[in-house]
Amino acid sequence: MWDATERVQMGQPTPELFVDTVFAYQKTAAIKAAIGVRLFTAIGTDAKTIEAIAKETGASPKGIRVLCDYLTVQGFLKKLGDCYEATAETQMFLDAKSPAYMGGVVDFMASPEMMRSFLEDPTSYVRNGGAIGSSTLDPNDPTWVTFARAMVPFMAPLAQSVAEQVASWSPPPRKVLDIAAGHGMFGIAIGKLIPQAEIVAVDWEPVLAVAKENAKKAGIDNRYQTIAGSAFEVNFGSDYDLVLLPNFLHHFDEETCVKLLKKVKQSLSGTGKVLAVEFVPNEDRISPYMPACFALVMLAHTPSGDAYTAAELHAMAVAAGFKGATTMPLANSPESLVSFELNE
Amino acid sequence: MWDATERVQMGQPTPELFVDTVFAYQKTAAIKAAIGVRLFTAIGTDAKTIEAIAKETGASPKGIRVLCDYLTVQGFLKKLGDCYEATAETQMFLDAKSPAYMGGVVDFMASPEMMRSFLEDPTSYVRNGGAIGSSTLDPNDPTWVTFARAMVPFMAPLAQSVAEQVASWSPPPRKVLDIAAGHGMFGIAIGKLIPQAEIVAVDWEPVLAVAKENAKKAGIDNRYQTIAGSAFEVNFGSDYDLVLLPNFLHHFDEETCVKLLKKVKQSLSGTGKVLAVEFVPNEDRISPYMPACFALVMLAHTPSGDAYTAAELHAMAVAAGFKGATTMPLANSPESLVSFELNE
Repeated sequence: MWDATERVQMGQPTPELFVDTVFAYQKTAAIKAAIGVRLFTAIGTDAKTIEAIAKETGASPKGIRVLCDYLTVQGFLKKLGDCYEATAETQMFLDAKSPAYMGGVVDFMASPEMMRSFLEDPTSYVRNGGAIGSSTLDPNDPTWVTFARAMVPFMAPLAQSVAEQVASWSPPPRKVLDIAAGHGMFGIAIGKLIPQAEIVAVDWEPVLAVAKENAKKAGIDNRYQTIAGSAFEVNFGSDYDLVLLPNFLHHFDEETCVKLLKKVKQSLSGTGKVLAVEFVPNEDRISPYMPACFALVMLAHTPSGDAYTAAELHAMAVAAGFKGATTMPLANSPESLVSFELNE
Repeated sequence: MWDATERVQMGQPTPELFVDTVFAYQKTAAIKAAIGVRLFTAIGTDAKTIEAIAKETGASPKGIRVLCDYLTVQGFLKKLGDCYEATAETQMFLDAKSPAYMGGVVDFMASPEMMRSFLEDPTSYVRNGGAIGSSTLDPNDPTWVTFARAMVPFMAPLAQSVAEQVASWSPPPRKVLDIAAGHGMFGIAIGKLIPQAEIVAVDWEPVLAVAKENAKKAGIDNRYQTIAGSAFEVNFGSDYDLVLLPNFLHHFDEETCVKLLKKVKQSLSGTGKVLAVEFVPNEDRISPYMPACFALVMLAHTPSGDAYTAAELHAMAVAAGFKGATTMPLANSPESLVSFELNE
């Protein structure tokens, strides 16, 4: 029965993966600490000693030594004698002086609320098949304001890439609806590239305040309208050339997605298109890494959300009266662009 | 300056490591959920469908599907079509029917208290160089009762390996002091292998209750004495042939360790030996993996503990009046055996 017993006696199976996984929360703590003390900004692009980093961050030399060693083991730093140097990725994404800095995403992705809903009672959402009493779909859940503020650096390159595709259409869309706009980056990037485009953003009122700020910063606020409320309840208006659904469908079950897609379809112009941005796992649901892992995020945080495969998204599209849905990976991103096409 | 910028435009650096690290707490949640619903016990040694696993665990098929896919991605399961199969390691360590089952260690290693002290304010212990207001060194901290109960499966093979070395000594030790005995496994394993040995265990009173239970189960309770209280304050007695310090020194700074080692030295017989079990990183402090990571555990949980290198342990030994300390890796374990030797 226990054929593994012999192997462990030969020194083969080890509990290392298990122990590393049980202790994984410590990795989150370490990266939060590093962002919190601006460790990678202090290290910058040179090799630095513990003393230099401690002085720059105002943290204790011992704390810096332990944290830097840990982050070296985890692959964020390289240790050269007594000095630590940032990897190219770390310099790129985690030094606040870098234009691609995204350290602030920890405020959303590892917020106390997100971690609590994951860690407080992990068996409950597995037993139940979804979060019980999750508030993340409530109008005033502050989660989405945090999301809108924290996720801009993560979403901006993605939004830019989507906007470039959209701007190449002939003719480019003139009237764009951005559903669950959040930070607003997807609609705003399109507004910046297409000077004639009018953008209409839908989200909860407190979240729209962030989108409006971002639209103003982007200089498109004169072409930026908002509709406050639930995407399932508000009147979208009509004749949209493009409807955006960025990171929205995964929060709901298939039936609810189909209901929303039907409503979206009615708001389109005759040649209108619908683009969703989604984490789309392969049919095996165990690859690619991040989309495959994303289903657990939805299990822990939503009553019935999921990471849908391309086939499931296509089936939803058909059920909602579209010709179908085509899924294409987005370059330099774990997410995919899903295009819902009309019959015409 | 931003030479990394070009590379990211060529599609090279990605924030994947960063995102995976920020989200690492989700791995802890997943493994806790799996242990909680007895997932690996339900899967056992065969390939099973989602429906079969859901039925066996009483969890929802959707929760099982998402959890099993996630744990496949993380390397605990293999997915074969619609079925999931446990790896040899998973069968060995995580199926409750396996004699080497250690799933229960999550109760200590990822307890709400442990996770809170890590995650609540990670910058604080880095800034301060250690935990502020940590209670884990208090006499009545329930952490150590949880530790004593949860860590037996993890420590038992290690204790057995140490006991086998000790039992081969000529003559074998007759009087053994087990300091901060916890579960008591190290002293008890020696007591079982050396029928003449008397074991004296030191720990806080509530923890000793667990050690005494384990001594009784092992049938050595007639040779098992206890001294309740702080190792720094109680009277150890004298003439010990062997003093054990399992996983204790790392909680304290070097000065405190030296103070304790001096006290230990005075309790030894003329030919007495001292053995510590420790996570000992290499001189580079970034290898091997687990001992290198362990320093962060001490930073987060203790005011001034650390993972000491072999050279540091040797220096402590010399400062305490020993000839020195020799560190040897323990087979199939991330820990090392540290032997403190007298001059004679």
